[in-house]
Amino acid sequence: MDGKMLAYRMLDWQQPPQVVEIDVPRPGPGEVLVKVAGNGLCHSDIGMMQIPQVYGEMIGWRVPFTLGHEVGGWIEEIGEGVEGFFIGDPVALISPHSCGTCEYCLRGQDEACVQSAYGRGYGRDGGLAQYVIARAPRDLIKLKTLDPKVAAPLTDAGATSYHAVKRVLPKLIPGSTAVVIGAGGLGSFAIQLLRVLSPARVIAIDTNQGRLDFARELGAHDVLTGVTETTVKELQELTNGRGVDVVLDFVGIDATIAAGIAIVRKLGAFALVGAGGGTLQQPWFNALPKGAEIFCFQGSSIADAHEVIALAEAGLIRSEIDIYPFSRIEEAYKALDQGMLRGRAVVTPNE
Amino acid sequence: MDGKMLAYRMLDWQQPPQVVEIDVPRPGPGEVLVKVAGNGLCHSDIGMMQIPQVYGEMIGWRVPFTLGHEVGGWIEEIGEGVEGFFIGDPVALISPHSCGTCEYCLRGQDEACVQSAYGRGYGRDGGLAQYVIARAPRDLIKLKTLDPKVAAPLTDAGATSYHAVKRVLPKLIPGSTAVVIGAGGLGSFAIQLLRVLSPARVIAIDTNQGRLDFARELGAHDVLTGVTETTVKELQELTNGRGVDVVLDFVGIDATIAAGIAIVRKLGAFALVGAGGGTLQQPWFNALPKGAEIFCFQGSSIADAHEVIALAEAGLIRSEIDIYPFSRIEEAYKALDQGMLRGRAVVTPNE
Amino acid sequence: MDGKMLAYRMLDWQQPPQVVEIDVPRPGPGEVLVKVAGNGLCHSDIGMMQIPQVYGEMIGWRVPFTLGHEVGGWIEEIGEGVEGFFIGDPVALISPHSCGTCEYCLRGQDEACVQSAYGRGYGRDGGLAQYVIARAPRDLIKLKTLDPKVAAPLTDAGATSYHAVKRVLPKLIPGSTAVVIGAGGLGSFAIQLLRVLSPARVIAIDTNQGRLDFARELGAHDVLTGVTETTVKELQELTNGRGVDVVLDFVGIDATIAAGIAIVRKLGAFALVGAGGGTLQQPWFNALPKGAEIFCFQGSSIADAHEVIALAEAGLIRSEIDIYPFSRIEEAYKALDQGMLRGRAVVTPNE
Amino acid sequence: MDGKMLAYRMLDWQQPPQVVEIDVPRPGPGEVLVKVAGNGLCHSDIGMMQIPQVYGEMIGWRVPFTLGHEVGGWIEEIGEGVEGFFIGDPVALISPHSCGTCEYCLRGQDEACVQSAYGRGYGRDGGLAQYVIARAPRDLIKLKTLDPKVAAPLTDAGATSYHAVKRVLPKLIPGSTAVVIGAGGLGSFAIQLLRVLSPARVIAIDTNQGRLDFARELGAHDVLTGVTETTVKELQELTNGRGVDVVLDFVGIDATIAAGIAIVRKLGAFALVGAGGGTLQQPWFNALPKGAEIFCFQGSSIADAHEVIALAEAGLIRSEIDIYPFSRIEEAYKALDQGMLRGRAVVTPNE
Repeated sequence: MDGKMLAYRMLDWQQPPQVVEIDVPRPGPGEVLVKVAGNGLCHSDIGMMQIPQVYGEMIGWRVPFTLGHEVGGWIEEIGEGVEGFFIGDPVALISPHSCGTCEYCLRGQDEACVQSAYGRGYGRDGGLAQYVIARAPRDLIKLKTLDPKVAAPLTDAGATSYHAVKRVLPKLIPGSTAVVIGAGGLGSFAIQLLRVLSPARVIAIDTNQGRLDFARELGAHDVLTGVTETTVKELQELTNGRGVDVVLDFVGIDATIAAGIAIVRKLGAFALVGAGGGTLQQPWFNALPKGAEIFCFQGSSIADAHEVIALAEAGLIRSEIDIYPFSRIEEAYKALDQGMLRGRAVVTPNE
Repeated sequence: MDGKMLAYRMLDWQQPPQVVEIDVPRPGPGEVLVKVAGNGLCHSDIGMMQIPQVYGEMIGWRVPFTLGHEVGGWIEEIGEGVEGFFIGDPVALISPHSCGTCEYCLRGQDEACVQSAYGRGYGRDGGLAQYVIARAPRDLIKLKTLDPKVAAPLTDAGATSYHAVKRVLPKLIPGSTAVVIGAGGLGSFAIQLLRVLSPARVIAIDTNQGRLDFARELGAHDVLTGVTETTVKELQELTNGRGVDVVLDFVGIDATIAAGIAIVRKLGAFALVGAGGGTLQQPWFNALPKGAEIFCFQGSSIADAHEVIALAEAGLIRSEIDIYPFSRIEEAYKALDQGMLRGRAVVTPNE
Repeated sequence: MDGKMLAYRMLDWQQPPQVVEIDVPRPGPGEVLVKVAGNGLCHSDIGMMQIPQVYGEMIGWRVPFTLGHEVGGWIEEIGEGVEGFFIGDPVALISPHSCGTCEYCLRGQDEACVQSAYGRGYGRDGGLAQYVIARAPRDLIKLKTLDPKVAAPLTDAGATSYHAVKRVLPKLIPGSTAVVIGAGGLGSFAIQLLRVLSPARVIAIDTNQGRLDFARELGAHDVLTGVTETTVKELQELTNGRGVDVVLDFVGIDATIAAGIAIVRKLGAFALVGAGGGTLQQPWFNALPKGAEIFCFQGSSIADAHEVIALAEAGLIRSEIDIYPFSRIEEAYKALDQGMLRGRAVVTPNE
Repeated sequence: MDGKMLAYRMLDWQQPPQVVEIDVPRPGPGEVLVKVAGNGLCHSDIGMMQIPQVYGEMIGWRVPFTLGHEVGGWIEEIGEGVEGFFIGDPVALISPHSCGTCEYCLRGQDEACVQSAYGRGYGRDGGLAQYVIARAPRDLIKLKTLDPKVAAPLTDAGATSYHAVKRVLPKLIPGSTAVVIGAGGLGSFAIQLLRVLSPARVIAIDTNQGRLDFARELGAHDVLTGVTETTVKELQELTNGRGVDVVLDFVGIDATIAAGIAIVRKLGAFALVGAGGGTLQQPWFNALPKGAEIFCFQGSSIADAHEVIALAEAGLIRSEIDIYPFSRIEEAYKALDQGMLRGRAVVTPNE
């Protein structure tokens, strides 16, 4: 490298990001420089492009910064004090930021880290560049056989889905049913994870027929087109009136929350993962399924990322990607925004 | 007994119950006849008096039936095949009905039994009578030193509070805080249970100053008067900005749900116990505390009742009662309805 | 039926059982009569044939009684008060006896029921007869598509293995390894259950090459021949020095316990299921893997049986059986005793 | 300080340690220098004095090093990059060493850290000196009102006991019983923790009458003198034949393991904490209580230390100490070795 690189950066608040040339960063103590093989695009990036200055600065962000928080690549340079990693090692980068020392991190609950709002690709320089910095070993997962481009989406889309599925596993005993609402970037991982980690029957719901076909291919036993007035009735029929043990809602609008809450059985679970801005309009005491666990979360733990990548390394799940060279990044975001993607869009800044 | 007894009965739908004379029932196989020492009055009784016929019959109820589902007494007669119980034994009666064989009951989750809507005092004859029938041993807890009148409220008000507290215990590590909203019949048990079963700091909120004084007496570390616009700020101050790990909401109106959800920390818990008809008006994804467990339930398991009575037998909690003879039953319900009671109102049909 | 049937009975203590003709029993209230399709043979039957009178009577047994505790069949006659079951229904019978009301049963831990020592086929009449009595609904699992003969071994061999696997599932995260020692009647279920319920790598150990071939066919990733001096080293190599997360020991002799304990990782688990009479000769503090869970159990819960049968109904596991007509029952026990069976021997008293 | 300090050091393998003068260390990046208020003495120190060179070097130790792993003090100097700590802050030091990045540490199970064998006071310089180095913030707990001398034993004796008690808490439902064998440095914390965190009845066993008196003072409901042939029978009587739910064995010899295993109920727990070198002589399948959890561990997690100190800060437990000036350190070890101490011996190197 000649000391310069291309990066897709937020140059100012609420302005479209641009590909610009900047200096290649140098790893400090405890850090490595990673040559980016691929960076997965996430819906949350689109939100970041629109974040108002006052809110961004409140959570510690400063412009400019490089976008991209789903990174796979190869170690290019090793900072002082880093042990156990070598130049050329293929790695995936932990996506959520965590401090490692707060009360949550100490308990292995780093998805709730007090510093989680400010990380690689959201407030500090991310992976939509030819090179990116990462802490070692905290932020690195060594890859065995996985292509770093393929591993990239596992660090966020995959790990977030894994976090949801892992939390509800105890509910998914033999004979149970899980519903995945939204079979896109995250939901398509959830379908696979439910199949490999539980004996549950899996039902996928999406408005997009192509995604439903893909959902079946990934193992969904049944699919339903969109959440409508008849969805709850259809799910009752599909489960012989038993209802559903777990709903994972990757959409999160009023309609999906209402249907999901209505169909969950006593002692089941409803996980809200999608930031669709919905709420439940009914009185809680009558509406919430008795004894069920309702939860909403964001991100995933470092352990989640290691575990979901171990599943992919073992061939138990797959990460479907649509590759876009750096020059077509805006086209990739457009496809993401319009729900046109089948797999995760991965941008390859060095190709 | 001469074969006749007094009972406080729902003679028709949506009509005020009346004390009438009926035959003393006879225990069938696997049943005992219990002479009622006391029956605790519950807010849900007031709801039952107003239930429309169509809804009552939908869940299997038939009028007339005797009210009362918090019963303590002595065994008076023993049905065929009952072992291990003897005439004169002081007992408390399990309050929620459960079938013993559905998928929930088999797993010790009988609070979710498929038949839980139809039980002693709600749909079939309950404890506001001189005698009542109970299954043995399923519905009986032998008392060692507790007065059956004092034990009566433990079977429902006590056991329901215990169910809520037990579920959130893993969140209540040293240094944590629990908030009890509503320090009445159930909340006053919750305060005690939190103190004896966890190291959490306990904060009670109620609109009634007498109850707050009682809450302090029962062990609340802090008390706040009602949920107002400043409640969340006050709780933040009381916890040095840390927030609250667990909120148990025994009221359940919009204001308590909003405040409770707002003050719960990441990975905490919010339990809705009060049937106040409230909901949360905000978008869930932003409003729900990340990773926290939100749940709503009704009733308790048989194990819960055994365990909460074991606590009372050991002197670790107390059941405060206000005794009303049968002749003053309507006065007792009025005091309950108006929030005038300090302890649980217990009616003594044989005094 | 003409009121008489054949049954394989313990006529006296420590005498070989015999096929004799006895009266067909009649179902009492809450019971059904089941026509036996098949009864699986269990190693513990062989122990029962040799139990001394003093010990048998201590746990409440009386001779004569009919052996057999893995039963599948069809409902032949329905006792008073039984609802929801009909003549001709194919059913599997819950194998362990449980009272339904002790502190363990109330909590869904009926595998630890205080009355578990005295049940159908061990102390009271079991399934090695043309007809057998069962309580309804407690002891019945309705079959959908499974052949009752095939379902029979699931009620004990299957459910016991399931109980072990279910308990260790939280340890079996992606990247973990589970070792099954003894790939016979129970172990062959464990291998399948580990594959369908967890992402763990599964290693089977057995002295019998035919069983190891079968283990591979059922999904074991690796197999080892017998526990020898080099077993621990081989397992270290197979796991790249990582060690094993879970060992399920279905043999339970000194050598298997020593090897299992030696190879389990920190925070792992060692389950002793096999009654081989072994112990650990080393000082516990140095030998037991730090933080690991060591446990030993017997039997399974009713929920376990329902869940393992749900897996078989869904085609996720299979129950391999070797059918023996009643006339060849002694030959079947001999094959079992000599470890000659591939699947479970199931005797068909009506064929 | 003049750059020199006194330290109690292992100068060579298997030689008695000596108080010698060495340079005061300087904190590197991410470290602080702590002025030692007090260092608690631990039985394991006595083992370290006797460790053979070959074994010590195998686990990475090098002589000379300063002993002492239970440290409280005040921050004296702050290294580069340390935030949130200030000179003069009273602190307790996390006792077990952990890397922060291995698979165990990432999951909040740092008590099982792969580097736990080599830490402050065991292999590297510990707290039996006037000054000691600690990482910040990982190894520091800020004290609010606790005297650092009093806090010192909480970091190891307290935290280890807490780890054991926390693990068994789910077993300690109302009506349960816990037995603490060995009411010394760790056991006396366990008794208090059981009382404050559970509703269990607590029975302490020790051979020393003074300790038994102290155990009662700390909340033990009953005490027994030593483990003898009649201990199991006495415990059966004390529990009306019910048996014991949990045994915490802080001694760990053959007799305590045998008695503990014999008295634990089905589904209970037996925790081996004491390194007494004992084993169980009986066949496991018959001897181990069915379904119970047997475990052995060493050390505690960082979260454990924070939580046990939070309990002490809240006044819910107390740390009883016997103060020894540096000049009397050998006398203190002798008192420890001979079981003469009531509280933990804390050496004050700066007094």
